[in-house]
Amino acid sequence: MNRPIQVTVWNEFLHEKKHPEIARIYPDGIHGAIAEYLRSQPGIKTRTATLEQPEHGLTDDVLDNTDVLIWWGHMAHDKVEDAVVEKVYHRVTGGGVGLIVLHSAHYSKIFRRLLGTSCSLRWREAAEKERLWVVSPGHPIAEGIGDYFEIEHTEMYGEFFDIPAPDELVFVSWFQGGEVFRSGCCFYRGKGKIFYFRPGHETFPIYHNPTVLKVIENAVRWAAPVERPKPLTIPKAVNVKPLENLS
Amino acid sequence: MNRPIQVTVWNEFLHEKKHPEIARIYPDGIHGAIAEYLRSQPGIKTRTATLEQPEHGLTDDVLDNTDVLIWWGHMAHDKVEDAVVEKVYHRVTGGGVGLIVLHSAHYSKIFRRLLGTSCSLRWREAAEKERLWVVSPGHPIAEGIGDYFEIEHTEMYGEFFDIPAPDELVFVSWFQGGEVFRSGCCFYRGKGKIFYFRPGHETFPIYHNPTVLKVIENAVRWAAPVERPKPLTIPKAVNVKPLENLS
Amino acid sequence: MNRPIQVTVWNEFLHEKKHPEIARIYPDGIHGAIAEYLRSQPGIKTRTATLEQPEHGLTDDVLDNTDVLIWWGHMAHDKVEDAVVEKVYHRVTGGGVGLIVLHSAHYSKIFRRLLGTSCSLRWREAAEKERLWVVSPGHPIAEGIGDYFEIEHTEMYGEFFDIPAPDELVFVSWFQGGEVFRSGCCFYRGKGKIFYFRPGHETFPIYHNPTVLKVIENAVRWAAPVERPKPLTIPKAVNVKPLENLS
Amino acid sequence: MNRPIQVTVWNEFLHEKKHPEIARIYPDGIHGAIAEYLRSQPGIKTRTATLEQPEHGLTDDVLDNTDVLIWWGHMAHDKVEDAVVEKVYHRVTGGGVGLIVLHSAHYSKIFRRLLGTSCSLRWREAAEKERLWVVSPGHPIAEGIGDYFEIEHTEMYGEFFDIPAPDELVFVSWFQGGEVFRSGCCFYRGKGKIFYFRPGHETFPIYHNPTVLKVIENAVRWAAPVERPKPLTIPKAVNVKPLENLS
Repeated sequence: MNRPIQVTVWNEFLHEKKHPEIARIYPDGIHGAIAEYLRSQPGIKTRTATLEQPEHGLTDDVLDNTDVLIWWGHMAHDKVEDAVVEKVYHRVTGGGVGLIVLHSAHYSKIFRRLLGTSCSLRWREAAEKERLWVVSPGHPIAEGIGDYFEIEHTEMYGEFFDIPAPDELVFVSWFQGGEVFRSGCCFYRGKGKIFYFRPGHETFPIYHNPTVLKVIENAVRWAAPVERPKPLTIPKAVNVKPLENLS
Repeated sequence: MNRPIQVTVWNEFLHEKKHPEIARIYPDGIHGAIAEYLRSQPGIKTRTATLEQPEHGLTDDVLDNTDVLIWWGHMAHDKVEDAVVEKVYHRVTGGGVGLIVLHSAHYSKIFRRLLGTSCSLRWREAAEKERLWVVSPGHPIAEGIGDYFEIEHTEMYGEFFDIPAPDELVFVSWFQGGEVFRSGCCFYRGKGKIFYFRPGHETFPIYHNPTVLKVIENAVRWAAPVERPKPLTIPKAVNVKPLENLS
Repeated sequence: MNRPIQVTVWNEFLHEKKHPEIARIYPDGIHGAIAEYLRSQPGIKTRTATLEQPEHGLTDDVLDNTDVLIWWGHMAHDKVEDAVVEKVYHRVTGGGVGLIVLHSAHYSKIFRRLLGTSCSLRWREAAEKERLWVVSPGHPIAEGIGDYFEIEHTEMYGEFFDIPAPDELVFVSWFQGGEVFRSGCCFYRGKGKIFYFRPGHETFPIYHNPTVLKVIENAVRWAAPVERPKPLTIPKAVNVKPLENLS
Repeated sequence: MNRPIQVTVWNEFLHEKKHPEIARIYPDGIHGAIAEYLRSQPGIKTRTATLEQPEHGLTDDVLDNTDVLIWWGHMAHDKVEDAVVEKVYHRVTGGGVGLIVLHSAHYSKIFRRLLGTSCSLRWREAAEKERLWVVSPGHPIAEGIGDYFEIEHTEMYGEFFDIPAPDELVFVSWFQGGEVFRSGCCFYRGKGKIFYFRPGHETFPIYHNPTVLKVIENAVRWAAPVERPKPLTIPKAVNVKPLENLS
């Protein structure tokens, strides 16, 4: 793509309005912190969208101008309209929009719809240490990361993480309290690409961590459609004529 | 498993009642033909269930006594109750029931629910030849099949088949009219196993073909839970204590 | 297979002869400990073979009567004759012999020959705790294991483990010192099956741990050829006539 | 990468010198035809190297300035020095050089060394038609290709192709004579990327086909290291200190 990658950072944006201590960490919302970083990177244009906007901010016009959609949700997955989920689903599987799913959005409607599994896991909030190990060092999403990186205080997510085996596994997390987790997972679905990335939380400043932001940037470049426009849907079953003489 | 594998063959069983020429090929229904073969194999016990029975024949009692469920549907996917689909979904992902999905059931509610994709494909009815090549010769589902096998007259299904990349690809089909198709596909979801097998049609005697029946038998043995009973569901996200001292 | 699975447990068997403290843990050798357990399981017949026997104990006659070969080596990988490695390689890829590779045998000639990568890793001997998490709970090798199991004192192996992405990933290890490791890895090569299992060490009594032994038993049942005899090699490139009329 | 991708096209370059009818199709050699196309594409710099040059043209200096190596060989695989194969092997697995393996190079030393399997297959020279179907339509190597493309006259390669299951399967071929083949296969090994692409032959003008050349160009962009320089080798097993307090 010779033009900039167009990113839309979506956030339910409720925690930040309700809890002053979260607003202190993310004064412009989680979406604001991620968007601010991406705007400073070459070849990327970024906008944001939130739950309480009309159509959750994901109008056709916005999606027509989105190459990669980043999704953060936690307490209001059920408030996301099914019609919007279906629209995003078809954009992703049709290959027009790459999707990056962050942290607690493992339970978002769109992620569960795309994967088909429950996406359940173990969890604990104890401000413990996480160390993310690279298990696919040649993968573009691991570019520039080194052997591992650390997050000093985080919520724990542990296995069994009920997802289909990822098409590419990039990171595996170690937690101080004794668990492991498949933390960076690539999926191909239809014509589209999806990346799940575990780090992130509303009460820890994880989206200010430069390595976390670098991984998100790498994922944006990986998930972007190579050329645009693309067909926006996967066709229904189609009855076709033979390509060879059957006689 | 030291006791017999308990198989339930499910069929919507509508074609056979409506069309005398189909009834001639399958006088006891497609489910009857498959069940008759399986009953003659060692270590397998078989029953059947159909759409028009109460709860489509898939009561809790039947499912409690089912290790492997074989699914055939075509013209009435939408008539299958969502509640039954959800029940089967949880049995499969919970690891209690292995699932074998045949031919036109690529469009069944249960298969699409499990995979998350549209499961669309190309198709044509021209009674052409199909040759199924083994691309995973060490796989238990390919046991005893040789390098390939042929079906003289069949409906064509062609790529792109919109499924997630299979966890194991066993067969790839060649069609006389010029297409190819991933015809034998294994998926692991949750704790369960799923096998999609392309051959089969209501107006061709495909479920009388000994090699097709042998593959179905192999798939039954592959998909059966190793031990029973198993937990019947994947747990929801669970908050856990640390396993290590965090201080 | 209606007859017993024939297992050969191979051990270089040098540590145990040199170091009395190792001989105290494994008076009959590591192979002896594993073989003793397997002999007590239904449907399994077990023999052993060691480095210093003629042909390392792996004569054609022994291999003809081996369904699954378990491999333990550490200090003498280079002493294994290339001709024996080639013979085992062809038995495994030809589908006649399933292979289970234990712990330090990640650096054995046979494992590196089969995978093509360096199989290098990080390591440390500090008698620390390991916890193996099941990430594929429906897999037959995880049968009966639960969510995880622990080894109180072990050598550490850490990522990046330079292997091809496993065809099925069953266990991921957590180590007290901060690392993670893909500890249970299935590979299909040619017509054969290979399982790498990390636990094991000469100075810790790991092959007396009932869960470790249960996993090895599960792996034996998974890796065994379904039917015997099998072709013993993969054919060379073969020039073939067309199956269809080309005119 | 903001600088051009540096491609080296390697050819054994023997057929073209021996057979005038091959020289007529490829007056500058197969490498010349591929290089000519790549030179006309934006962001790519191309050189060539051949078997009979000193060190087969693959000196350290050339490899230091190679991001992607394209490999064509057929009748002289055994003439390639093992030392050169080892050097290329470490460049590829170390992540410094992406590798594209064409047609009959399935039997090259470097491909077999990287994959560990025999890489055998069925074949036939009957000038028959091949149709390559895209089975991974969102993959960057399938960019701009459509649902399928055709080669009117080609040599046939058929399954079973003895390779590890590809990490990503992009193309599956249909042949007029009745076979199928996994024709576009991505592998990740160490830190490196490898693409096998089936089309190509010395007596058919396949490397003048615009779609074949477009796929090779796509593969060059996919296989190129994201940043340079990269570490040129995978480290040996390394003994490490704990990252966490073990007391």
